[in-house]
Formats: sequence, C-alpha cells, structure tokens
Amino acid sequence: MAAKTSTLEDALESIPDRPEFEGRRRVMIEGVSPEVDGGRFAAKRTVGDLVRVETDIFTDGHDSISARLLFRKESSSDWMERPMQALVNDRWFAEFPVTELGRYRYTIHAWVDHWETWRRDLQKRIAAETDTAIDYQIGAGLVREAAARAHGTDRQFLEERAHLLESGGAPVQQRGIATDVALHALMALYPDRRFASELGRELVIVVDPVRARFSSWYEFFPRSAGRHPGTHGTFADCEARLPYVAEMGFDVVYLPPIHPIGQQFRKGKNNSTTAEPDDVGSPWAIGSAEGGHKAIHPQLGTLDDFRRLVRKASEFGIQIALDVAFQSSPDHPYVKEHPEWFRQRPDGTIQYAENPPKKYQDIYPFDFETPNWRELWKELKSVFSFWIEQGVTIFRVDNPHTKAFPFWEWCITELKRERPEVLFLSEAFTRPKIMYRLAKLGFSQSYTYFPWRNAKAELIAYLTELTKTPVREFFRANQWPNTPDILTEFLQLRTRAAFVIRFLLASTLGANYGIYGPAFELLEGRPVRTGSEEYLDSEKYQIRHWNLEQPDSLRELISVVNKTRRANAALQSDWLLDFHPVDNDQLICYSKRTPDGTNVVLVVVNLDPHHTQSGFVNLALDVLGIDEHRPYQAHDMLTGARYMWTGRRNYVELDPSSLPGHLFVLRKRLRVETDFEYFL
Amino acid sequence: MAAKTSTLEDALESIPDRPEFEGRRRVMIEGVSPEVDGGRFAAKRTVGDLVRVETDIFTDGHDSISARLLFRKESSSDWMERPMQALVNDRWFAEFPVTELGRYRYTIHAWVDHWETWRRDLQKRIAAETDTAIDYQIGAGLVREAAARAHGTDRQFLEERAHLLESGGAPVQQRGIATDVALHALMALYPDRRFASELGRELVIVVDPVRARFSSWYEFFPRSAGRHPGTHGTFADCEARLPYVAEMGFDVVYLPPIHPIGQQFRKGKNNSTTAEPDDVGSPWAIGSAEGGHKAIHPQLGTLDDFRRLVRKASEFGIQIALDVAFQSSPDHPYVKEHPEWFRQRPDGTIQYAENPPKKYQDIYPFDFETPNWRELWKELKSVFSFWIEQGVTIFRVDNPHTKAFPFWEWCITELKRERPEVLFLSEAFTRPKIMYRLAKLGFSQSYTYFPWRNAKAELIAYLTELTKTPVREFFRANQWPNTPDILTEFLQLRTRAAFVIRFLLASTLGANYGIYGPAFELLEGRPVRTGSEEYLDSEKYQIRHWNLEQPDSLRELISVVNKTRRANAALQSDWLLDFHPVDNDQLICYSKRTPDGTNVVLVVVNLDPHHTQSGFVNLALDVLGIDEHRPYQAHDMLTGARYMWTGRRNYVELDPSSLPGHLFVLRKRLRVETDFEYFL
Repeated sequence: MAAKTSTLEDALESIPDRPEFEGRRRVMIEGVSPEVDGGRFAAKRTVGDLVRVETDIFTDGHDSISARLLFRKESSSDWMERPMQALVNDRWFAEFPVTELGRYRYTIHAWVDHWETWRRDLQKRIAAETDTAIDYQIGAGLVREAAARAHGTDRQFLEERAHLLESGGAPVQQRGIATDVALHALMALYPDRRFASELGRELVIVVDPVRARFSSWYEFFPRSAGRHPGTHGTFADCEARLPYVAEMGFDVVYLPPIHPIGQQFRKGKNNSTTAEPDDVGSPWAIGSAEGGHKAIHPQLGTLDDFRRLVRKASEFGIQIALDVAFQSSPDHPYVKEHPEWFRQRPDGTIQYAENPPKKYQDIYPFDFETPNWRELWKELKSVFSFWIEQGVTIFRVDNPHTKAFPFWEWCITELKRERPEVLFLSEAFTRPKIMYRLAKLGFSQSYTYFPWRNAKAELIAYLTELTKTPVREFFRANQWPNTPDILTEFLQLRTRAAFVIRFLLASTLGANYGIYGPAFELLEGRPVRTGSEEYLDSEKYQIRHWNLEQPDSLRELISVVNKTRRANAALQSDWLLDFHPVDNDQLICYSKRTPDGTNVVLVVVNLDPHHTQSGFVNLALDVLGIDEHRPYQAHDMLTGARYMWTGRRNYVELDPSSLPGHLFVLRKRLRVETDFEYFL
Repeated sequence: MAAKTSTLEDALESIPDRPEFEGRRRVMIEGVSPEVDGGRFAAKRTVGDLVRVETDIFTDGHDSISARLLFRKESSSDWMERPMQALVNDRWFAEFPVTELGRYRYTIHAWVDHWETWRRDLQKRIAAETDTAIDYQIGAGLVREAAARAHGTDRQFLEERAHLLESGGAPVQQRGIATDVALHALMALYPDRRFASELGRELVIVVDPVRARFSSWYEFFPRSAGRHPGTHGTFADCEARLPYVAEMGFDVVYLPPIHPIGQQFRKGKNNSTTAEPDDVGSPWAIGSAEGGHKAIHPQLGTLDDFRRLVRKASEFGIQIALDVAFQSSPDHPYVKEHPEWFRQRPDGTIQYAENPPKKYQDIYPFDFETPNWRELWKELKSVFSFWIEQGVTIFRVDNPHTKAFPFWEWCITELKRERPEVLFLSEAFTRPKIMYRLAKLGFSQSYTYFPWRNAKAELIAYLTELTKTPVREFFRANQWPNTPDILTEFLQLRTRAAFVIRFLLASTLGANYGIYGPAFELLEGRPVRTGSEEYLDSEKYQIRHWNLEQPDSLRELISVVNKTRRANAALQSDWLLDFHPVDNDQLICYSKRTPDGTNVVLVVVNLDPHHTQSGFVNLALDVLGIDEHRPYQAHDMLTGARYMWTGRRNYVELDPSSLPGHLFVLRKRLRVETDFEYFL
C-alpha cells in the first residue's frame, strides 16, 4: 500500500527556520541555576567568588553528551569555557571565578558527543570481546573528522591514528590505539560542535566588592556628635567619633541626610507639627535656600570638611555611607527651579505627601509621571554621581519603594557600569514582593523583617527563605535590630539581655548587619508612647547628647563580636547557615561555616530575655564535617571559655542576666597523642 | 552650593529606549501562573475549563492599580479582556473560559489607576471630613480626561459630571456626585492606560478534548482476538471484541502496531533470537515487502476493515488509539527507498539498534542527524496524517525519548494546529526530566512511574508531585498497572488482591488510566523468569488465546469502577486529589472532588495484598466541605454498602481476600427531620 499525499500533509509541511527547530540540535538545556526570573535580572556575587552554575542537560537515546559553560566579563567579547560535569539525575555543573568587579555573562552549549559515545561503547564491546574491525573503522572516521578540525602536529597525530585504526591490525593493537589516553585528550580538543545546542540567552552576574556580602554598619546622627550638650555636632565631631566606632569594629558608618533642612512645616521635637524656633527639624526634609541634595547643612561644616571625614574614616578602614532620600522640603531649590518635577494641584500649589487623612506638608514627593521624567531621572542620578565624586561609595536609599521602579534599574545599572564598587542599601520596609523586586533591580543589600522576628520558628523560617532558596541569588540581607524608625517592642523591654539577644542574632545571622547608635549600645529603649515603635525624643527631630562612657554600654561586647566576625570567614557569608535542633523552643542554635569546612562557628542564643533556659542541642555533625566519635572543642569567643564536646548532643544553659548567648568557634580536628606517629 | 556637571555623569546620561525603561510604566508584573519555563512551552487544559491566571502585580508608593487579563484564540487577532482582582500579598487573579479546541494566548496589562486612587482617598477624606474644593477639582480633571477618551452619551455624561465637580457646590452635593456608582462604572470603562505595563510576552494554553484529561484505556493485541485458538485474529475479531470492552466501560482501545512485520532477524517466542517458521514476530519490528508504517499487516485485514473497526468502535463510544513506533525492520521499504535516513556502517550495511554488547538486529533506528532530516521529519509526520485521515485521533507513541526532541515539538504542534483534537500518549519510561520535557514539547498524556509505586509514602510523594506542583500544567499522567513490557513484581504475586489493589489505585488516582488486557483482568502474572518484568509467553512474540469467561475475571469489578468514574466528575480530573491520614501505613486514603464541591469521592485501599488491615482514617472535612458536626453518608460503589459517618475519625477494615478497597461517594448534606420547617 503506497502512502498517498494527504491534504492535511500539504497544509503542514513547513519546517520552521528557527534555531530550536534545527533538527540536529538534539541536546536539551533547561533549569539553569543561578537564573533570576528567566534571566530578566542578574544574580549577585562578590569578587573572588567561584560561581557554580548548574543545569539540566539531556538528549534523546543513549548518546554521550559534552557540555561547556561559557563566560566572559560583559565588557569583553571573548568567551572563556569550562567543561561541565554530570552530577545525578541529568544535572550538570561547572564553576567559573569572578575576579573583577562588574558584570559577567554566562551561557551554556552542549552537544551529542559521538566520539565519547563510540569510546564508551567500544569499552563495553572490548569487555564482552565483541569488538570488530567495523567498530574501529567507525572510530577512525570520527578521528579523521577531528583531524580536519585540527592543525599542525595535532592534525598529523590524529590523521596517523585514524589511519592505524582503519588499517585492520590485530585486535590487541587496535584496542590499544583506540583507548589511548593521548588520543582521547586530543579528540576532546577538537569536538564536533556543528549541532551544539545553545541555552539561547546570556545570563548576568553582578560582581560587587566583598563588603556587599560582609559589612558591619554603624549609624549615627552627626548633629548629635557634638562634644558638649546643646551644641550642634559637626563633621569635625564625627571625625573625633571615629576611634570609638572603629574600636567597636564597624567598617561602614552611615549618616542620615547631611543636607540643608527645610523651614516650611518643619517638624518639632517628637514629631510635633509645630516647631519651636530652635528646633533643628528632620534631616529627611531636604532642601532650603542653602541648597538641596548636593549641598551640606551649614551647621555640619563644608564640603571640604565632609571630604576630610571620608578620608579620615578610610584610615580606620571605615567607609562613609550616605543617605539618599529623594524628596524635597517646600524650600528645596528644585521646587522653584523645576516645579514640573512635582505634582501640581489645581490651585497652583504643589502636592505634599499624604496618606489621607494624614498630611505630611513638610515633604514634596517627586512626580515620576511628569512628562519631564527623563530630566528628573538624570538629575536624581547626578546626586549619586556628585557624592561618588566626593569619595562616597555606599548609599543607603530611603524608601526606594515610593519611587518608580524603572528609575532604580536604570540608575543603579548605569552608575555601577562606570563605578562597579558602589553599593546601594535598600531601605524598603514594605511588602515582600516589593522588597525582592528592588533587590532584583539592582540594590546591593536590603533591610529585612529581622527586627520583628523574635520566636525561634519565625527566625528559622525567615532565615531559611533568605539563605536557602533562590532569593539568595539576588537579595542580600542586612540585619538591623533597630533603626531611628524602629524601636521594636522587644527592645522596649529595656533590659540589657534584650539588647544583647538581638545584637547576637543580627551580627551572627547576618554577615551584613548594622545598629543605630549610640541609642543601641547605650540601651535606649523608651518609646514616644506605648504601642509606638518611635523613640521618645527621637534624634530624627532633635539633637541628643549621649554619654558614651555609660558603664552598661554594650561597646565591649560589640567589639568582641566584630573581632570574631573579622577573624572567622564562616561569619562573613550567609549561604552556609544551618540550624540545629534544641529541645527547648527558647533556645536557638545555628552554625555557619566556610565552603571548605575549615572554619565553623556555632551560635546558641537564649531568646527569652527573662529566664535562664537550658537544653540539649543536637548538632548535625555530618554537615559540620565533625567526626561523631572524636572530641572537638567549642571555644566561646564571648567569655573565652573552652568546652570539650563529643558527639551530637550537648548541654547548654544560658542565663540572660549574665550573657544570653554562646558564640563558639568549633575546632574539630583536635590532635591527641594517638595522632602522632611516635605513639604507635 | 551649585551642582557641577560631573565627568561621570557625562558618561552615563543615556536613558535606554526600551519599553522597560519607559519611566512612567510604574507597575511591575511578575510570577505568572500558569507559565511553563518562562513561557517557552504551553500549559494544557481541556475544553470547557476555566483557566485561572495568577500573577504578582505591584507598584511604587500607595497608588491603586488596575489590571487586565488579555486572552484570545491564537487564530484570532482580537484580544478579549477580564479585569483582574487582588488576592493577598500582591497576588492577582482572573479567569477565562476555553471553549474551543486549539491554542489560546494570554498576557497581562496593569496600570496605576489615578481615578481609583483618588476615589479611595476621597472616601477617607470624607470619613475624616477633610475633603476640600481642591480635592473635587482634582477629581473633575480626571473625569474630564476620561470624557476625552469616551464617545456619545458617555462622553456627555462624564463632561457634565466634571463640570459639576469643579463647580464648587455644597460639600454634601459634591460628595454625592463624586461617589456616585454610575460615575464610577463609566470611569472604569475609560481608564487611562497610556502608561500601562505589559507582561511583555504572550503565554500559550493548548486546549485538548476532555478525553485528554479523562480516559479509560484498554490495550489488546488484535492478533490474539481470534475466536479460536491457533487462528490469527483480524480486525473483524476486534470488532467482535468491542462489546466486551465497552461493557467494562473503556473509551479508548489501544492496539499495538498493526503494520506488516519484518522477516529478517524476526524474534521467536519469549524473545528468542531464532524464530520458528510459524512465529508471528514482534509487531514493533515494523515493515516488510508488504509495506511500512502506512500499511496494514495482511493477516489483520485491509485498510477498509480497519476503517470499519474505527467506525464500529465509535458506535460504542470508543476511540481506537494506534501505536506509532518510529523504527524499521530490515525489510521496511524505507530501507531500500531511503537508506540515507539510517546510519550507514563503513561496510555499507545499516546500523541496527544496540546497547553494547546487546544487539537488536531486527530493528533499524532512524538517524535523526541525517543531512536529509527535513525529508525524514516530513515523512514521519505524514504517518500520523495518514492515520488521522483513516479516523484515528489518538496515538500512543513508542519510546519517543529515542527520537530527536525537536522533531516532536514540530510534529505535534503542526498536527494539532490543523487537527487540535488529536492526542498523543508518550510511552517514555525513562529519567524524570526527559519524561517531563516530552510532555512540555506537546505530548497530551504520559505514562508514569506508577507501576513501581507500591508503598503509601511513595504513592503520596509521587502523586503530589504530579497533581500539586507546576508539573501538572504540562504533564498529564496516564496510570497503568501493567503493559506488555511491564509485569511488575507486585502483580507477580498472582493473587486477585494484588490485581484489584493496583487496579483501584490506577483507576481512582488517575483520571486517565489504562490496562493491558485480557492479561490484566484475567490475572496473568507469570514472568518469563524470576526477576524479570517480561511476561511468560508474551504476546509481543506470539499469539495468545484468552478465556474471557474465566470465572475469576475482574471484568465486573472493572465495569463497576468505570461506571463510577463516568458518574462522578470528581474522578475525571487529578488536580483536586487530597490524601488523608490513616493510622496504619498499609492503608491509603484519598479523596477527589469537583471544584464546586458537589461531588466528592473517597477511596481507601489496603496496600497489603496478604493481610486484613484496619485503622482510623482522619478526614480533612474542611477540605471536603463537610460539616464536622453533621452526619454524612459514605456510599461504597463497589459493594453498595452505605455507612453513616460523623466527624473526622472513622474506622475502616479491609480484607484483601474479599475486597481490598472502598470506593465511596460521600453525600455530605443529608436532610434530617430538623431541616424541615414543619419540625420547628
């Protein structure tokens, strides 16, 4: 019976000319990691990282596959390659180092490897003694094809081997030639990639300075740094404060806005809507006749003073982070010069911020729907550029979620293209998907919900989401126990234990963390009123004078913890965080370790600020790389005490009235006498 | 201090001209569901479904958002729209009906809705009595803009309202106008979508016939359907078998290949490599001098006979599914006519199938890397087209994972474009990612690992993966307890209980399921040898004569179960499958229900074929929509017994020697006397 040409067939006989329909590209590539939203956004790494790329690769039938990871600096057009290796379940991986700041691209090629298939099958045939002359002739053909792709001596070598393989020599000889390591090595250099499948897109890695992953922030109000009560602090006073901050071990000092403060609708103490004549106003009400976002509040000093502060700080290994709050006071020069950047009301006035029925008449938000948005964008970006020129490379961005998202993607990408060392901390305490989106758009670090995660289950769930899911590819947490806006209920307990608990958690759960001081280390916990998270006599609206020598200050504890963070690489990254069970819900136990396992830190915190809690921790020693049957040392960095433990279960007891936590460095391979040869 | 133009700024001042950088498109759209591999593949539905689309939508700040789901038949250029509604956590949804076979497309638009923002804020202002004339003027401006987008009476109405709102009337009057429902309804018709964000891609839904989701398959070998032992069955015999199959309630009859069978290297009984002269060979060794994939094995009858069988079957509501196995016997006409479609060996012979050191010399695989792959593809597709023209609309594809994946995507997509009712069952018992990829490429249904999932935990884990994860968007399971290639260890127990257990599981866990009969209903369980899953005296290599009237046949049980499947929509879909705890690991309990909750089926199976097992099921009554405090009826369709249950915990006891399962229909709202008014 002959096949007849069907009318159906006539209608369908086109074979598309698109790459995925090249019939001989038989290998499938899918499920790439890291890949953020199908490649729409970059994944983040820091300089010196090894980027591990995994992907599913498979083909029809039983043929062998070869695969390559291709990568390059975005600015270079030359791809480099790494062979990928098969794991289990059709998963493959390869790694590439990111040694420079900036953007890298990577993609994947994979192909059916006929040589490898032939070699694998031949080995089976040889084992079964079923290899025939034809098998070697097939191999010879593959070698001859490779020779045509090779040059010079390689080509010559391959041609010779092809000739030998098809010459029909004795089996023993043929087997030797076919399975020769040198031949295989050379064949691997000249694969047949004509029908290689390609991932079809280039994925991006943004490589930041190490400080993007590991940083210790200290926020303080410059105007409160005056040496005498009642005086307005200056940049010179900030300089004088540097040794204090450096001694505590911080490497980022973040200053609230340092620009001229508006007069109209200025807020008084404790956020009063009527300011007294001597009230200093909120630094976030930016702009006055003296200037806007590129100017300095005269009472703080001059631009030269600021530059000097930046320089001095760098001598202490400290970077100054500036607050960028894109909003204007009614007195900002922008209001007169660019009224088109704000929303106009029908009466000709400019729309102030409001959340009806509440009005914030001291703040004019920008209108990101202005027809002049391009000019607005350029001006806002130029604010960053201006301060970058003054030596600032870290910015804490105020409420980025109230500015148009496309602006951030453009602004951050463009700034980092030229200056990839610049970091941006997103201060968006808002809904989860918005916080994550801002991170995807380019923010280097982000504030988190940590301030409100107090219970063990909450902490474990949240930190697991941040460190064990694809979120970690783009969202870098910066854990703060307090900010000038957030005096949590927990800290309002105003006990030393409450502050220590939150400090230990922040500084060991977060490779990036920060505190707002001196309020934090001096245990300031008075709210403006019950039920509020605002500080009483908040520095946002008035100058405070702090007694840094207060005897109950946490500065020494902070110093010890920051020293421990610097000395232990395990605490400088969040990905290898693991929680360990404790048979007491008030005790939380977790470890951090380095990828090579040489540094392991174990933390136990009593989450109950009122009572002594005790229990048995049950350590996942396999994860920590510790032999269950050999002793290991738990060296508490907070007290200097050393404990000798063996096995998984170990007793802990923590009294919040003395110290509610352990910060152990585990030394796992303790040498004992039997380790020495002379003992035998 | 004046801003100076920075050199950095000069370098960066371009604002890209791409859509995502239109500064006024402030709404973000991400995380769409369904979406398979970022839109690379279609999701699957059946005719009459309501497609629920969910997505994350949010914008900066506090403005209100409006969003629309756009959808269309792929063949139409007219988009239809449905408004999307907000759920929680920035998740939005809308539904659209798919009423026709074929491909639909959908996408999402969303925008900042200034009218809705204004209305929401105004209501707050009114509540606080802080609304002012300026607020109404702002609203008037928005109404006037909408009027400009409207026509006819709508425009007139809006212009009038705008005029009234800005006229400065008494507050009470203004409030009434502003919050008027008619005004709002009209404003919603003329939204300002100038800066609407778009998802940026169109996603595809493939709509199949209902049988893609709900089907009961029965496989048998036509040549074994002869009425007398020793005779070769014909299509006429198959016709005679139809009432038997229909009585059992099946709606798909799947026939192994019906084409001429090769002579060279023909396999003998029990897969012997030497065939006796009277051996009939394997139907999968396709092709002889009498023809190939478009021909019919002469002993079965003619093409007319086959067409008649298809017609007759349809009178019983049965569709005939054909086996498409793309491989050739050495005698296939292709071998002579198109040697270039096969791989040539250096000695001029054609490469047979092998898995070294095993050789399958009766089978020549196609070479999908042939330079003539386009011709090969067209010919292979024409095989489907040929049989579609004979009335076949369901194909069971043999080992699709040994043919090039790009071919399947092209072939299935093209065939379904013209004939969207055609279904393809993927017979790929291989690694998980390959099975899933084939489904993504277009296969309508897929065989699964069900045959080897026996323990409760295994069944729950696997069925959860298939029905509760994104896998369900593209992979439709077809659950088979046996096939001619798979006689599981469990069935080799050869007890009635073993067969009933596997049958009940397949037919109630799988809205699509099938059995290979009469081997199954006649409890055939003898393996060719211990440790093998091959049948003894397999029909793959010889004709078998079955005694359909065998007294222990499962035909009546099968009939009851298939009737129950037809009468209960709950069993016709897999998505609303839920497992319920039982305090006995040998008892598995699960329910299926319809989306509206009106039909609920509860299944309890004793997985232990040897012993009576009992325990308490603990039903998730909230999921089932059953009041915990009211009695409900469990009506066992297998025995007719009715049980009156109240509450979550209920005792079950199942004796495998009588019947190892319950198949309950739950009737949840039983009327009792107190329900009637006259009782009060």
